[in-house]
This record gives sequence, structure tokens and C-alpha cells, in this order.
Amino acid sequence: MNGAEALIRTLVDGGVDVCFANPGTSEMHFVAALDRVPEMRGILGLHEGVVTGAADGFGRMAGRPATTLLHLGPGLANGLAGLHNARRAFTPIVNVVGDHATHHAPYDAPLSSDLDLLAGWVGGWLRRTTDVAHVGADAAEAIAAAMSPPGRVATLVLPATAPPAPTRAAVADVDVAATAALLRSGEQCLILLGGAATREPALRAASRIGVGSGAKLLVETFPARLERGAGLPAIERVGYLAEHVADQLGGVEHLILAGARAPVAFFAYPGKPSDLVPAGCTVHVLAGADEDAVDALERLASLVAPQAEPVLQKPVLPDLPTGGLTPHSLAETIGALLPENAIVSDESITSGRLLPLTTAGSPRHDLLTLTGGAIGQGLPVATGAAVACPERPVLCLEADGSAMYSLGALWTQARERLNVTTVILNNGSYAILRMELQRVGAAQTGGRAADLLDLSRPSIDFVSLATGMGVPATRAKTCEELAVQLRAAFGEPGPHLIDAQLAARP
Amino acid sequence: MNGAEALIRTLVDGGVDVCFANPGTSEMHFVAALDRVPEMRGILGLHEGVVTGAADGFGRMAGRPATTLLHLGPGLANGLAGLHNARRAFTPIVNVVGDHATHHAPYDAPLSSDLDLLAGWVGGWLRRTTDVAHVGADAAEAIAAAMSPPGRVATLVLPATAPPAPTRAAVADVDVAATAALLRSGEQCLILLGGAATREPALRAASRIGVGSGAKLLVETFPARLERGAGLPAIERVGYLAEHVADQLGGVEHLILAGARAPVAFFAYPGKPSDLVPAGCTVHVLAGADEDAVDALERLASLVAPQAEPVLQKPVLPDLPTGGLTPHSLAETIGALLPENAIVSDESITSGRLLPLTTAGSPRHDLLTLTGGAIGQGLPVATGAAVACPERPVLCLEADGSAMYSLGALWTQARERLNVTTVILNNGSYAILRMELQRVGAAQTGGRAADLLDLSRPSIDFVSLATGMGVPATRAKTCEELAVQLRAAFGEPGPHLIDAQLAARP
Repeated sequence: MNGAEALIRTLVDGGVDVCFANPGTSEMHFVAALDRVPEMRGILGLHEGVVTGAADGFGRMAGRPATTLLHLGPGLANGLAGLHNARRAFTPIVNVVGDHATHHAPYDAPLSSDLDLLAGWVGGWLRRTTDVAHVGADAAEAIAAAMSPPGRVATLVLPATAPPAPTRAAVADVDVAATAALLRSGEQCLILLGGAATREPALRAASRIGVGSGAKLLVETFPARLERGAGLPAIERVGYLAEHVADQLGGVEHLILAGARAPVAFFAYPGKPSDLVPAGCTVHVLAGADEDAVDALERLASLVAPQAEPVLQKPVLPDLPTGGLTPHSLAETIGALLPENAIVSDESITSGRLLPLTTAGSPRHDLLTLTGGAIGQGLPVATGAAVACPERPVLCLEADGSAMYSLGALWTQARERLNVTTVILNNGSYAILRMELQRVGAAQTGGRAADLLDLSRPSIDFVSLATGMGVPATRAKTCEELAVQLRAAFGEPGPHLIDAQLAARP
Repeated sequence: MNGAEALIRTLVDGGVDVCFANPGTSEMHFVAALDRVPEMRGILGLHEGVVTGAADGFGRMAGRPATTLLHLGPGLANGLAGLHNARRAFTPIVNVVGDHATHHAPYDAPLSSDLDLLAGWVGGWLRRTTDVAHVGADAAEAIAAAMSPPGRVATLVLPATAPPAPTRAAVADVDVAATAALLRSGEQCLILLGGAATREPALRAASRIGVGSGAKLLVETFPARLERGAGLPAIERVGYLAEHVADQLGGVEHLILAGARAPVAFFAYPGKPSDLVPAGCTVHVLAGADEDAVDALERLASLVAPQAEPVLQKPVLPDLPTGGLTPHSLAETIGALLPENAIVSDESITSGRLLPLTTAGSPRHDLLTLTGGAIGQGLPVATGAAVACPERPVLCLEADGSAMYSLGALWTQARERLNVTTVILNNGSYAILRMELQRVGAAQTGGRAADLLDLSRPSIDFVSLATGMGVPATRAKTCEELAVQLRAAFGEPGPHLIDAQLAARP
């Protein structure tokens, strides 16, 4: 058994049995070893952005790491944006990067670079295996590090005992009791849910606390995985725009964090604060990202709301709209047709702003959002989620501009026959940047600036692009067409793409 | 005049008037300022890999920097692979990265990361402008740094006097004389040309030295920009495979470097050396990468070969082949039809291995190669070269696997109506890795390993992909079809793509 085989066996023994890969010469031993360890499933991505994004989507849904296989510094560089989002999502990933053979390093060959420096940018856990005898032990440690709460990217740079499953630390009784006292003080409290506290048990406990104590509830702006829909508590998310957040937090005297961070603005804007916690509001941490926020919320609920029942969302579907596609009618169509138990990978940016409203009463689903703002994650994350949950329908809502970052993920979806329906919200522009151009005070722009935010010259034919990579695709210009095509896509196995052309195009 | 406008004015005054961009919110002031400085041409790329690759291609051909416009850490991360190749090519680039507003940094907003660390990975010159009053001076310094020999990536992180044009240092007379003495010693010498010494004046001087002294001549394996073809000295390149290099350097007692580095293996292989300089061969540096190798070679020629004439390649075209497309017949077709004064962006990997031979006697052309081995550069570099030299035909020879890394460059080519003809050398696999799998001693693989190097399931329809981004495309399965389509593409303005399907597909 050589080093590569020892590595794969350790990974498989540790429950890591999916490898998203874009290998190169320095990873050939690993590729060869796949033949000898059939338990490991190798899934090829055409670019490292697909590989790392898919590992993020897999980890968010499976709750355990996939492994990646990247090639030297440039391969890691190409995958960094996906690892950035994964870091923000606390997704466990075992990130395997092949490096030059040790004795080759001094020669500064063309692909040489400071790989450790890039790995350091990702943060998390980092190990360079220098002795092949240690590869198994290092891999076991990497799995443990990746799974250690709240979850992280563990990078193993290469020249087998299953790890213990790490658990989250419990919040001390005294801290739960202190929060209960705050909630009973009569002052206005708000509980902000994030991290692992955005799934059913935490949402139910939080809802009970709200009923019992009068506390307001919010979920962080970009949750890694939010369970929502009919039968679950519907808790609003913190807004993207600072003025919206100011409304949401107005009058709040105590902000209680459960797995979340206190809200900050995505960007700096002239004359607007970066810290969105209002003056006079005190921030309290009930549970940090690495602590057991779910357990803390449940204990808190039993203190302040022992008899309360959570408020559950009723099944309410929007009527199917008719006529031309607008952001509004598109969101209603999605809300009306979302299938039971779907996973929604949402990178719809501006055109999707009404989706939270129109899908609130849709059948129960998981929502995966753009945690780190590094665009291009929607398609890869959908790919990884579909690998993690092959029995569930995956809906990828993807803005046209972001889609072009990692469109090659469609090819992997076709290759693996994944049940992903991608809807391109096609408005022919970087519309988010048109808005931002105004908001940063750089308005009064003329044609040349606007041209740099325009994607319509030439227009991008997503039907042609998808079919070119083996994914059946259609084009919808009306709500009726979108409804027919969505039903057909959900009804048929394998990937599909719908190019939804929004009326409000430039 | 605000900071962004001051920046752009300084860049334009310093001769930097092309900006390849994929902006985000933190760059909106820059975008807005484009309206007020019409001398700056903004060119949109759909991914930062397109942006940095295009800036590399532009710089290699124009001999002066373009500027980029990248968005925060994730934007820089996506562009790193292109900057890696540019670093290896010594391409001057003014790499402008927008960061969060200074007062926003402490909030660790979603897109925050250690941007300086990534910029440090690129190497070269790095400045963070902290005071808007300094942006003009910093930009001027960035231009000077980018142009300072041998050329580099100068990164300016953002919250007008034109710089002096830096020149290469001359090699001392005593060093030229010492090299002349070596050449006259009767021992076997080989002059290795690289860096700036791969263009006509250096090639002519080297050829004269070879005639006059009997020295062997070689060009480095992956030159940034090699001038070649009929009427120019034809000097063989150092091989990619170590065994080939051993043949080329066999018997050489003195290796004389002119702008090049001593050859090292691309990767480590079992039982093979990383340092490819044979035992008993002494390495001498005539001119380092930042010195004036052209001048040194000319002075050396006047010492050792004052009367010698360079040996010039005669115009010799291969016969147009017929029948199915193989790597051999495809290379012959290219050689037979390469237009006068073309620029060839070569990322053809395995299928292009015969091109050096079949294009040796083609009309004079520039060859841009994969300097840093970070794949995906062919299409972006062709894009930038076409912007730099709008009057010249650009031929991009692109392997199918590499093409999928930065295919979005086609959209920018369509948008800017660039005269680029892309030929996809489509063999349906990562064929280079099939070879490497054998070479690293990881042979005896079965179906699962081979599957991870296979691009044919599903097959990628490049005609569909190109037309989806506004580039007219055709498919060629025979030499006759390829010839007809190549002539048509070269004869018509704007971009074209030919999907050349090689017979030896899996």
C-alpha cells in the first residue's frame, strides 16, 4: 500500500468517500489509487472553482466533509474563492493539494509558488505531510480538524485510524440563565440565529422563546443552510441593505447571538455605519459559532417558555402568475412550484430579492446562500448538494453574471446525472452593480461606465451553453413557459437548465 | 477630481490606457471615473481569470502594461493563476485591486480576507494606498515598477506625473569578454536564450555567434514571446521531457545563459534528475533576466563573429494534408495556412507537440507559450494580444481541457470584435495526464482512474459553447474541413472558433 492508497483508505475509514477533483501530474498517484479503493467516489470538475464549490455544497448538506484534489499553487489559487465561501459557511472540507515532490522544490520549476501562503489565506487547519509514513495519521487529523466545531477547511499538502467525531461544547448553565434573565427584564430583546442554529430544532426552540418572552427573532443575512417552508418556524433574515437592518433592529436594547455574529454592512457606504448594531443596543453572546447553540436555545426555551408552542408557517402558495417574466412573477412561479423537500442553491442576487417572500409557505426546503460573497458558487454548490442528497430535487437559482464564473459545473452535473434544475435569472447585466454604483455615491455616470456592467453585448445564450455541456435546456420568456418547463425539469431525472429571460432587460 | 479619476489620469499619462476589468462594489468609483477619462479603454471579462490572462497577453505583445481592475480578495484569488503565468513571463501589469474602505476593514464583512497575503503570493511590487492624496504618485510608481526590467506585476491596492521609463542594465565589458574567451576555448559551449532575448535582434546575434564560434544554441522551453518563422533564425527550444533535454545538452561543457535560467524538470519523476544541467557542465550567466541580454549578445557577436551572417529560416510550408485529423495532420494544416505576421497563443498541450516543426518555415509570427504551467491561459492571452495588436491576426491553439478553464474569454472577444481564431484541439481527454500517469510510475491503472482523465462523457460541444457567447463556430473532422474553415476565419474580421476533432479520441 503506497502513500496515496493509505491516504484514500484513511479518508474512507473516516467517512470521507467523495472526492471532487481536478488533478494534475503531481496527483497521479492519488488518481491511480482510486482504482484500488473503490469506496472512494471520484467526481471530476473542469475547473477548481467547480471542485471547491461542490465540496462546499456537499458539506453543507451531508454534514460531513468531501475531499478535494487540487494541483499545486495555481490549482489551489483557482479554488480559493470557493474555499472562502466555505470558510464563511463553516463547511467541513478535507482540501488535499498535491505539491511538487520534496526534492524537486529547490528548482523553482514553472508551477512552483508559495503554496503554504495560499493555504494560509484559507485559514482553518493546515498540514504539510513530509514523510509518506505519516500520511494516514495526517489525513485522520485533517478529518478531525474539518469536523471540529463549527467546521472548517482542513488543508493537507502532500509530497490511515478513523478520527473521533468532535462535538460542540455545551454553553454553561450560568450563561443560559443570564440570557433568561435578560429576556424577563422587560427590555426589548432580539435573538439572532446563525451558523448551526438555522435548522429545525434551533428554529423551533427560538420560536418558542419568542412566544414565551416577546423577544424578536432574526436569522443572519447569509445562512450556510437554512431550513424553511411550510411546517417550520418562519423567521425573517437580517436585510442586505443597512437601512433595512436599521428598521429591523430599531428599538432593540439587547441583541442575543446564537451561533451568529453581530451584523455588519457588506460594504462601506458614504455616511452610513459599518457596524449595524444600533446605538444603545448591547450585544450578548449566548453561543459562539463553535458552541452548541441548538442545545442552548432548547434549554433557554425550557426556562422562559416551558409551555409555549412554536409558531409554524402554514402552507400558502402564491397563485401562478401569467404574462411576461419579471423578478416578481418569476419569484411567484418558483414559490408555487417548488417541490417537496427541495434544496435551493440561491445565487439569484438582485432578481431574486422577492424569493424569501414567495417561497415562505412553499413545501419545506433547505436554502443554501452566498455566505462569503465570492460569486460563482451557485452552480458548484448545487452540484455538491446533489451528490450529498441524491434523492432530493435541487433547484439552483443563478444570476446570469454569476453563472459565467463556474458554468463548467453543468458538465459535472451531466456526467454524474445529478438531479439539479438550474434557472438562470437572466437580466443581461451586472444589475447588483448598477445599484451599488448609485449607493456608493458614484452616480451621474454615462455610457462608458454603464457599458462595463452590461452583459447584453453580445447576449449570452445559456441554452446553447448548457446543451454544449450535455445539459438539456430551454428558454422561458413568460410565466406560463417557465411553469411548464419547471414541472418538466422536476419530473425528469438528471440536470436541466431554464434560461428565464426577465422582461426588464437593458 | 476624485481619487479614482486621479488614478486613471495617472495611468493614462503613464501610457497605461487599457483596463481589463471585472469590477465589484468596491470599484464603483473607478468605473464611474471611466466616463470622465475617455482615453482609458475599459474591457470587461466575465471572470478574473480572463482579466489577468488578457493583461498578460496584452503586455507580452504591447511591451507596456495594461491595468486590471479586480474586486477584493476573492476577485484577486480568481485571477491568481493568470498572474502566476505573467510573473513567469516577466509581463508588465498594473494590477489594481479594490479593497474595502479603510474604516470598514475591522468589521470582517463577508468578502473580507487577507488581501495583502494573496498579493504577496504574486510577488513583484505591492503598494497599499492609504491616503487618496497619494493615489496618483502610487500609480506612477506602480507603472515604473511594472516596467522595471525584466518586467513584473505591480499590485496597487486601493481604499499624476509620468514615470521615467526604466531601462535594463548593460552587461559589463569584462563579462562579455569572458564569455568570448569561453567560446574561443575550443570546449563545447551552448548559449541558452530566454526572457527578452527571444526576439529578432537577439536571435540574429545568437545565430551569428553560433556560426562564428561553433556554439550550440537553444531557446528556453516556454518563452513568453518568441519571434520565429521564415526570415528569422530558427533556434530549437529546450524540450519538455528530461530525456529529450539530456540529448540536447549531451557533451556540452559550458552552458551560457542569456536572459534564461538553467533548465529544470517541470515535475519530479522517479529516478530522474530535477536539475537538467548534465554533470561536468559549468553554468555561466552572460545576462540575467533584468539585464540587457540583447545588447550583450550583439557585443559578443561583434567580438567572436564580426563577419558572420545569421542562418535564416527559409520559407518552407508543409503540404496540405488530407483525410482525418490527427495531431500530425492538424499541425501540418496550421503550418501550411498560418497567415503573415500572426500571433500564436499556444496552449495546445499534447496535441500540439508537432507544431514547432510544421510551423518552422511558416510566415514570420510571434509565439506566446504557457510560461508558468497554470492552465487556462490560451484564450485570455490571445484576447489581450489581440487588443495590443489589433491589426494582426491572432491564432489561439487551445487544448479542450484547458479551454474549459477560461472559455468566457470568447465573450470578451465577441464584445470587442477581436481578430482571434481559436482552434480547439479536441481529443476528449486530459491526454497530458494520461502520459504523466505513466511517467510518474503510477501505471497499471484501471477504469476508475482513467475515467477521471476523460472529457468525453458527456462530450463537450465547443460549437454550441462558442455560439452561445456570440463567437461564430464550426466543426472540423478532416484536414480539408479544417483548411476551408481556417481560411474563412482568417479572411473575416472578428473572432471565430473551430472545434478540431482529433481522430485519436477515446
